[in-house]
Amino acid sequence: MQKIISLCKRRGFVFQSSEIYGGLKSAYDYGPLGVEMKRNLMNAWWRDTVHSREDVVGLDASIIMHPKVWQASGHLSGFSDPLVDCKVCKERFRADKAPAVEPGQEVTIELADKGRAKAALTYIEEQFGVTLKRSGRQLNGAKAGDRPYVCPNCGSPFMSDERNFNLMFRSFYGPVDPMGALASAIESGEFNGLSGADLRQKLDGFTKDSTVYLRPETAQAMFVQYANIQQSMSLKIPFGIAQAGKSFRNEITVEHFIFRSCEFEQMEMEFFCEPGTEDEWFEYWKETRMGWWKKFANNPENFRVRTHEASELAHYAKGCYDVEYRFPWGWDELEGIANRTDYDLKKHAEHSGSKIEYFDPVERKRYTPYVIEPAAGATRGVLTYLCDAYHEEQVEGPKGTDTRVVLKLHPQLAPVKVAVMPLVKKNGMPEKARALVDALFRRGINASYDAQNAIGKRYRRHDEIGTPWCLTIDGETLEDGTITIRDRDTMEQRRIPIDDAVTEIETLLRSE
Amino acid sequence: MQKIISLCKRRGFVFQSSEIYGGLKSAYDYGPLGVEMKRNLMNAWWRDTVHSREDVVGLDASIIMHPKVWQASGHLSGFSDPLVDCKVCKERFRADKAPAVEPGQEVTIELADKGRAKAALTYIEEQFGVTLKRSGRQLNGAKAGDRPYVCPNCGSPFMSDERNFNLMFRSFYGPVDPMGALASAIESGEFNGLSGADLRQKLDGFTKDSTVYLRPETAQAMFVQYANIQQSMSLKIPFGIAQAGKSFRNEITVEHFIFRSCEFEQMEMEFFCEPGTEDEWFEYWKETRMGWWKKFANNPENFRVRTHEASELAHYAKGCYDVEYRFPWGWDELEGIANRTDYDLKKHAEHSGSKIEYFDPVERKRYTPYVIEPAAGATRGVLTYLCDAYHEEQVEGPKGTDTRVVLKLHPQLAPVKVAVMPLVKKNGMPEKARALVDALFRRGINASYDAQNAIGKRYRRHDEIGTPWCLTIDGETLEDGTITIRDRDTMEQRRIPIDDAVTEIETLLRSE
Repeated sequence: MQKIISLCKRRGFVFQSSEIYGGLKSAYDYGPLGVEMKRNLMNAWWRDTVHSREDVVGLDASIIMHPKVWQASGHLSGFSDPLVDCKVCKERFRADKAPAVEPGQEVTIELADKGRAKAALTYIEEQFGVTLKRSGRQLNGAKAGDRPYVCPNCGSPFMSDERNFNLMFRSFYGPVDPMGALASAIESGEFNGLSGADLRQKLDGFTKDSTVYLRPETAQAMFVQYANIQQSMSLKIPFGIAQAGKSFRNEITVEHFIFRSCEFEQMEMEFFCEPGTEDEWFEYWKETRMGWWKKFANNPENFRVRTHEASELAHYAKGCYDVEYRFPWGWDELEGIANRTDYDLKKHAEHSGSKIEYFDPVERKRYTPYVIEPAAGATRGVLTYLCDAYHEEQVEGPKGTDTRVVLKLHPQLAPVKVAVMPLVKKNGMPEKARALVDALFRRGINASYDAQNAIGKRYRRHDEIGTPWCLTIDGETLEDGTITIRDRDTMEQRRIPIDDAVTEIETLLRSE
Repeated sequence: MQKIISLCKRRGFVFQSSEIYGGLKSAYDYGPLGVEMKRNLMNAWWRDTVHSREDVVGLDASIIMHPKVWQASGHLSGFSDPLVDCKVCKERFRADKAPAVEPGQEVTIELADKGRAKAALTYIEEQFGVTLKRSGRQLNGAKAGDRPYVCPNCGSPFMSDERNFNLMFRSFYGPVDPMGALASAIESGEFNGLSGADLRQKLDGFTKDSTVYLRPETAQAMFVQYANIQQSMSLKIPFGIAQAGKSFRNEITVEHFIFRSCEFEQMEMEFFCEPGTEDEWFEYWKETRMGWWKKFANNPENFRVRTHEASELAHYAKGCYDVEYRFPWGWDELEGIANRTDYDLKKHAEHSGSKIEYFDPVERKRYTPYVIEPAAGATRGVLTYLCDAYHEEQVEGPKGTDTRVVLKLHPQLAPVKVAVMPLVKKNGMPEKARALVDALFRRGINASYDAQNAIGKRYRRHDEIGTPWCLTIDGETLEDGTITIRDRDTMEQRRIPIDDAVTEIETLLRSE
């Protein structure tokens, strides 16, 4: 994993956001090669999900939606993590991710050093009336309380109540800064004598009219705009609405490079079908999506479908599959395919007072469609294919055995499709190379002119960023008009006429 | 304009965001056709600005950046509107957009009705000791004060001081909700006895550590990541870094449909060049960008370049051109091309303590590059080409003269490139049509199968959404394998072999 992160930074795939300012935790910028790879992946999804299908249309909704959307969807009440503070080491952690213990089980508390352990011993005795035995930086003799977990940092069972913290990013919309009004209110004594819930409610009053949220998923817009889209496009059930774009979650646990970050990109689709047909479509989309992910993979066996247990399902969901990839840290989620029933449309109908239904003109009946949702992570997709593509190979070179780093990216995903290289910077070779690059550009193929360093070094450089083919203009080109085409994976070279080069690359790109 | 807005909603180009919840002011969703058109425009920009050039690379940075970025860029202090409240009608308005008056000039105040005018008369007398004369809903006899403007709503010169309001959307990053901490602090009396600046400073303390902003422009990331990108890609000056994506401004005045909205899409590029060459590049990019916009236009004369007056320029800018389009409400800005000198890189170097420079390996000298910035509005581009494309024509039909609405969109921008229609739904025509649609899909051409209603109605439907070509399978197709191809703009039809259809469309798309 560290090798991939390092390659990403060194070769311009992914940088830490605002790095010169010390970076912003878990925010990433996609550099010149990363942005191409991400675009390629998301464009492939759009092409295969929207353009190539008659039954799916696209949508690009605003990131800031009406706050009532999140009330209806349940995000405002439910989209939160149960958060707990450890009273001993002050760690703040998610209760549902903390180490499990049996109630009453004896636990060991371990602090960073002996000094802290001594302080904790006194503190626990004073605050909780519990006397423990210290041994170095460990405290023994504590017992787990009623809650089935302890602090993941020090192991202590002494902690605050669980609080729900909303994962949605909050912002304020409109020209009034609520903090200004709040300052005036405190100044004029409006808060005097208030406490507890009353105080919090009054405080809330200053922000609630202007509070908006950054969407935590792209999905809700497809439900909210269902009727507009169905009517304006005269769509007949079954049909899907697809959207790709940024979502934001104020995650507490950010981990595994770009896998879990606060700002990320999704590719989601809501497929509306007649009640009674949803199981069929659920299976159909599982197969289709799984096939899509495998299509670009070197190692399809690293993708699997996991069926959610009944206990994992949201109360409204009838079923859920996860497409998982075997990341360096283990199997983890790449896409979820959920049978959401008619829950979302009904909720939005209820909260908005709008009729959100479908009228079948043939059967002459009216109903609320069921929804199958394949919701994929685009950012995770980028990481998946970087992991899938990263190879180190021992190759024989002029100076003996050498390690070749090669990104075996699918040509559709590769940032640069073809590198064009003059063997030397003279005899008109650079001019011929540039003319070829221009011809490739004109056909919409992202090519790269590369004349720096020896040819072997250039090949390696392009192996490392996953360029599938290198075209080299050499002495023979000047004589017979042929060039070499080198394959990234086999490293084999063959000669083709320079005049056929563009067509050859187009054919190779299409055949993959 | 109203006709375009109505077409946008009716045909699935643009909807109001969260419409079923009453809508969110000035937020828009791009429906199935709008998202295609926006993608086409932004992809054309990317292709022409990044892919087709060796000297420009791409970037896709996070929307939430480190807050220090906005300190360095000047957005935190300067990116704000001077805001004023009218004390008579309570209108809140931007001072720099309000109607101009001469100090001391006599002004007329006009209220909504007689009742309000009477109340205002009393209020003004009591509050300001000024006696006015009422005539119906007008108040006469007031004089403008020292400030060179009056309320744009009622014309009153009685108003609050100007206050600066930051246009950046604020949010909170990380797992601590500052409002919770604030509630506890008020409860425990920490604010007792505080007022004015002290109180505001203390209040600020609760939010400042976690406050982040949604980017108000995509541009700063190119400066912040300049060194990472230059080094990882071994770029030689002159070179550019391009980025397209969403930006957010908490605008007070939102107007003209999608022209000015709080959430919008930009296409920006920072072109780094050697000091001394910037004037040349400034002219180069003005010409290049102007040519780009005209390339897709029916009426290139509706685009013009306006040179900024010295008084309009930001203090660091050496020059600025606006590309303007003649919108229905008049000439307005579509893109700004600015000579930003070395201001931004130097500011970020100063604030971050990083060295942000360029070392010229040939001349062996080190310098801070100058920057030319062509910054275009993608959302505005969509509106521009909708306005440019909208035509109503009188045509002779079977039932006499009729009005044809046609969107003469450039084929590269058209949401659907080609519609395929079986003349009737029998004799194997639908099957042939679907096979042709599939063949088009396989070549990446967004096609649409359309068999609903009479053929004339279908043509009109596709005229209205700008589909450049319609292919019709009819009786002759079954006999001799030819189909008709109809041109949207001329409405002329000619016959071509069905087997040549895909190539024909590909050629037409390329030749435009």
